This record gives sequence, structure tokens and C-alpha cells, in this order.
Amino acid sequence: MRIGLLGFGTVGSAFAEVLAASGNEDVRITHVFNRGVERKRGHERAKFVATGAVWTERVEDVLEAADVDVVVELMGGLDPVEGWLRAALGAGKHVVTANKQLIAYRGAELFALAAEKGVQLLYGAAVAGGVPVIPGIAQGLSGDVITRISGIVNGTCNFILSSMEGGADYGEVLAKAQAAGYAEANPSADVDGFDARAKLCVLARLALHAEIDPEQVPAQTISTISAVDFAYAKELGCTVRQVSRAEIADGVVSASVGPMLVPKTSPIAWSRGTQNMVVTSGRFGGDVVFSGHGAGGHPTAVAVMSDVRAIAEGSVQVRLPAKKMKVVGDVVAPHYLRFVVADEPGIVAAIAGSLAKVGANIDSILQHRGFGGDRLPFVVTTEPCLSSTLKGAVAEMAAMKFMVEPPVCLQMLVVDDRDTD
Amino acid sequence: MRIGLLGFGTVGSAFAEVLAASGNEDVRITHVFNRGVERKRGHERAKFVATGAVWTERVEDVLEAADVDVVVELMGGLDPVEGWLRAALGAGKHVVTANKQLIAYRGAELFALAAEKGVQLLYGAAVAGGVPVIPGIAQGLSGDVITRISGIVNGTCNFILSSMEGGADYGEVLAKAQAAGYAEANPSADVDGFDARAKLCVLARLALHAEIDPEQVPAQTISTISAVDFAYAKELGCTVRQVSRAEIADGVVSASVGPMLVPKTSPIAWSRGTQNMVVTSGRFGGDVVFSGHGAGGHPTAVAVMSDVRAIAEGSVQVRLPAKKMKVVGDVVAPHYLRFVVADEPGIVAAIAGSLAKVGANIDSILQHRGFGGDRLPFVVTTEPCLSSTLKGAVAEMAAMKFMVEPPVCLQMLVVDDRDTD
Repeated sequence: MRIGLLGFGTVGSAFAEVLAASGNEDVRITHVFNRGVERKRGHERAKFVATGAVWTERVEDVLEAADVDVVVELMGGLDPVEGWLRAALGAGKHVVTANKQLIAYRGAELFALAAEKGVQLLYGAAVAGGVPVIPGIAQGLSGDVITRISGIVNGTCNFILSSMEGGADYGEVLAKAQAAGYAEANPSADVDGFDARAKLCVLARLALHAEIDPEQVPAQTISTISAVDFAYAKELGCTVRQVSRAEIADGVVSASVGPMLVPKTSPIAWSRGTQNMVVTSGRFGGDVVFSGHGAGGHPTAVAVMSDVRAIAEGSVQVRLPAKKMKVVGDVVAPHYLRFVVADEPGIVAAIAGSLAKVGANIDSILQHRGFGGDRLPFVVTTEPCLSSTLKGAVAEMAAMKFMVEPPVCLQMLVVDDRDTD
Repeated sequence: MRIGLLGFGTVGSAFAEVLAASGNEDVRITHVFNRGVERKRGHERAKFVATGAVWTERVEDVLEAADVDVVVELMGGLDPVEGWLRAALGAGKHVVTANKQLIAYRGAELFALAAEKGVQLLYGAAVAGGVPVIPGIAQGLSGDVITRISGIVNGTCNFILSSMEGGADYGEVLAKAQAAGYAEANPSADVDGFDARAKLCVLARLALHAEIDPEQVPAQTISTISAVDFAYAKELGCTVRQVSRAEIADGVVSASVGPMLVPKTSPIAWSRGTQNMVVTSGRFGGDVVFSGHGAGGHPTAVAVMSDVRAIAEGSVQVRLPAKKMKVVGDVVAPHYLRFVVADEPGIVAAIAGSLAKVGANIDSILQHRGFGGDRLPFVVTTEPCLSSTLKGAVAEMAAMKFMVEPPVCLQMLVVDDRDTD
């Protein structure tokens, strides 16, 4: 089997290494496409590409090559990659990709094209890198009725938040993550939830059989989380994680991505560093947890290599049907509201009044000692209520004159102790 | 697709329910084989089998039926099931089974027969029930070089040991497990490790590409574990679990099953109740954790249904090659030795002398206060050493006149903090 590799960066070069280590002589890289390809030929992992391979800056050399059976795309982004992969599928080549955006935004059309051409489009590396969530669900959980998926699918945010749990400051940890290569110079795609949202949509198609538009999934930034949130979360038996969750009930998908309070007893709270973790909840099988290294060149390359090997072995992956569905960002959950105020009489009354107006019941009020009166952080938790009903109250409270910064409103995950027989 | 179901017990009847709930009208049960089939027809889940299905006590009615495409075997055991499944495969029928013994002891021949006949033999339910470890490894980790698998694959033992962690006594918990249906009247297959050993061999074939003989894997009983072991384990930052582990290095497989000390920081320590958990360690992808409900009718039925659905959707599972390999039961690890002695002077000297003779270094000696001198439990931990070298010392110590009961010798798992890039 002959592979045309698009992209010889961190993952692409790791894939070449993993392929070489597999000792599988029936699979070889015959073409490598990259911009500035001469520089790439000098890469320390270029030695893992068989001599005689074509290194090129013209993508057509790969897409039109008669001696390429599988196109492995490890560049990312929608444009121009979408057109390239359409061309590859159209030419009857299998495609293996790690491109979550492409699968999230264009999956339906691409799967249809692959089916029409009788080739496979595998994307095991698109979510959670080296953790086989995608093949695990496709091949091993298709027999269940999965009603919810939740988890941690962005390693950068998990690195930041799990480091903050140890006492570090957001800005400081972000800078460290950037220096270590875990976070981009512009960290928005990660910290604002857009990366996780695309992955959530990829999982929703597979697990919930729901094709949802990533743009409809509300994404909340983690950049407003501060050390004090971890202190209050701890008091509530929780920690803070960027959680991606989607649930299906009565034909409606509710989905969201953002920092949430996670009980310490939930497996989601166990993930440390750049670890990923996905929990599926099934009507018959209960909760299944997948976790491991979600990012990095080598773990991602393992997922790519597993897909390549599956094709080489003549395996055909289960193709599950999915239906276009609307997304509701709203969810019924207890909520955590954190305020930073300039202390004065009547604050609690004003906030309680705002909440009462929208019918939200206060469950607890927490205020630690030891803060100055001009920047006093305190927390209100609510009983379960629709997140949308809180929106108006939060907007009203944000405008109150004693607010030093906008209130932070987070969902609180509830551990579901449902058991199966 | 027409299914001939062998066995309408807990899992078989749950499978009928899960199939009915899937709404998949292209898949239906046309035959049900069971002894005492009239009684089974009265089962409350018999309603999930389509009317018109043949209920029979003659297995030939299923194996020879021209209108059965897939034989689903949920009875267990080697004999007579092996012959039946050979007949089914021989007749060109796909086979889906939850039978770990069959795959562990006869897998190689059966896979060869299936390949020869161009049909599939799927067994996702054979290990960890509803947790998709088998398809996850086959489809999603074949690209890695897995060097170790470890985990908890027997829910009964995990229920017993995690209950004992809470302070309960072995005999008491076993009785409770038997009453709840988690343990058999004769619990030997579970507590003595034979069930877990078969599952470990199934996983070793898939993950380590090593075909090993279950009889060669040493299995140690959990029945010697007592409350005091949990107390000492806690002091060592550990708990006790029945762990199944296999490791490959330099072409040799070392494997064993039995109660081991597990650090609380290891995911293996997190499993509670009847949960199963499998950790694979790969050269490129690092550790991947799978966990969830490993047993019970419905979770197991999910795995069976997923295999059935994969076949119905025209999927073909990756078939990984495996090589016959010898097993070494020996492992280099720190060990935990627990003694119960009638107190007298010179005990520590005698034990230390035994250990010194085999070259085992003592790492710590723990002795809690508050026990009577005639039944005094205490613990010695060793630095890493070959378990076989300890065997002689343990035998020698067992014969010492102050020993009230035979010493308990457990491996201590070490958490490997290897990271991947």
C-alpha cells in the first residue's frame, strides 16, 4: 500500500517514524507534500521515509499520482484541504485524516463521497489523538443507545486548568504552555473552546448519530477562570475543567463547551496535564471511560497509523448513519456564579433579587475571608435551572455598580450514579 | 441478517432486548437454542424475539439452518461449544461470541478456520463486557507497539476487594456477592484467577501479538487477602486489587494474575464495584485507559450487539497476526510480604535472614500496634526483585514455627510516569 503524505510537521514526521517502527513492509510512503519541502527533507525524521519517495511542493503530484493508494492528511484547516481531499476521494483513493474541523464541518458530504467511490475516509486521530475513542465507539458501542458524551478533548485547556488547580495563575500557565509548545501564540482556538467544539461535533455524529453544526454549539472561554475559582470549587468538592458535553433527549441535542465545575468523584476530574478523557453514557452499557494522551506527535501518529493499518489489512470500519439535528445550547444544571465586587451593603440582596426574578433558587453562598473590600470575590450556587434563564440575570448583575468585573457563570456537572444490571 | 442465538440466559435475553431497542429491522433473531427451551419461551424477555422464530433444544436446527447468517454464542465453556462453532464457521456462518475460554484456548484454530471460510469471528464481549477494549485495541491501537497490558478484568474480584477496602471481611463480602449474583456458588474461577487469566490471554493476542497458553500464566487466589492487608496497603499509599498483567520484552512474555498492591495514583486503583479497567502501554502512544461495566447482561449484550451490527453494516475487523510465545510468570517488582506470627524474639532476624539468603533487599518493615501477640500481623516490603527468587524464601519462612498462617506474598505495581511527546 502506497501512501501520499500531506504535511511533514510534528504529526506527519512522527507518523513516518511510527510506520517505520511497525516493520510493515507492505505499507510505504511514496510521496510527501509540504511547503518548503527542501527544509523538510533535512528533518531528523526524514530518514524514516523510504528512499525514492517523491518530496514535492505541488499537491497535485500526490493527488494525481497513480501509485498512491491512501492519502494521509495531517495539515489541518478547511481550505484548501477540503478540495484536496475531495480530489483524492474522487480519484478513488482512501483518505486518513486527523482534521477535526474538516470532519466536523464537512463530514457528511465527505463520507457520502467516500461511500459513492467505494473508498474509506478514516479519522481516528481527529479526536483525542492516541486514545481510540472514535474506533471504540464505532466498532464497540454501536450496539448501545448512547444518550450523552462528555469529556475533556482539548489538552491545552486541561494543561492550563490542571496546573491552575495546583495554585498557578492563568496568564502564567498560558505563557508556560506556549513556551512548551502546548499552546499557540494566539491561543483562542483552544482557550475559547472552538477546537473542542469541533471535536464534540465529530463525537456527536458517531455516538449520538446527530449531525450538528459546530457554530450552533455555545463555547465559553476559560480565560476568565482565576485561582479563586479553584478555591471555591474545592470547597464544593469540585475542580474546574474545560468540559465538552452533548446530550440527546426527545430528538433534541443539547451541547456546550466551556469551563465547568466537575465533582472530584467524576472520572473527568482525574485527567491531568494534556490528558484527554471521554465518557460515553449508554442506556444499556452505562458509562464507559476512555483516557490517555490526546495530543502530541507520537500519540496522534498512533491513531493515524492504526487507520492506515486497518485499510492495509482489508478492514472496513462500521459506518453509522447520522441525522441532521438542531442544537440547543441550553442545559438544566446547577450553576456556579462568581462575583468580584467592591464591598458595600446590599450586594447579596441585589444579586438574590436578580436571581429570584428569573426563578433561580440559591443553593449556597460562599465567601472566603482574607480579601480586600475593593476586590471581594464571592460565590453563589444555584439549584438546577436552565442556563438560558440565568443569562438575563447575569447581564443585569454585570451592570450593577459594585461589580468590579463581569460575573463568571459556570455549569456544575452532576455525577450520575445510574447503574446497569 | 438472520441470527441464530445459542443461549437465552442473562446475556442472551439481554441481547434480544438490546437488538429490539436498536430498531434495526434488517437484523432479526430467527432461531433460539437452549436446554429447557419451553421454560425460556416464558422468559419475560422472550417478547423481544420476533414471532415466528424457531425455539429449539436441538443445536443442529440452528447450525444447519440455511436461514441463519450469524451464530451468536452466549453459553460459554469449551465443550461442546467449540464443536458447534467449528460447525457454524465451517458452514460459512459468521460467529459472534462472548466466550473468553474458547478464544483464549482455541482462538488460533478458530480464527484460521474463519479466515479460510471468509467469515468473521468477533468476540468483543469476551473481555470487559461493555467496555470496548477489544475493538479499541484492534481498530485504534494497532498502529502502536504495545509493550504491556494491565488491568482489572474480573468484576467479581473487584467487587470483593473494593468492598474489603471499605472495611468488610472477605467471607462476608463473598457471601454478599453470591447473594447479589456477582459470584458463583463455587467462586473458584473468579477468586482463584482462572477467569481473568483467560481474558488476559485474549488481550495478549490482540495487544502484544502473542499467543500464550492460559495454563502457563500463574494465577494467585485473592482468598488469602484480609482486612489487615488493606490497612498496611493504605500506609504504603496503595490498595489491593486483582490485577492481570502481561508484558513483552526481548521476545518474552511475562504474565500473571493475582492480588497486587496498586498505588492510589494508578488508574487501576480507581475502579470500584464490578467495574473493569484495562490499561495498555504503548511505545508511541503511552498509556491508554478503558473502563466501565465489565459484566452484567446488558453491558455484555452491548458488546455482542456492536459486533452483530458491525457485521450487518459490512464492516470487516482488523485481523492482527499473533505468534505463539512462551510465558514467564516471573516479574521483577517490589514485593509485599505479610506474615501472621505468634510473637517471640528473633522473628524479624529469621525473616530477614531468609530474604538475605535469596538476595532480596528489605525496603520497609511495618507493624501496626493493637494486635494480640499470638496472632500478630506485620509486613515486610522488598526492593524490586524477581518473584521467583522470593518463592524459596517464602516456602522456608512458611515452615518457621512462629508462623500462624502461610505468608502472603504480593507484587507491588509501580506507576510508570513515562510521558510521550
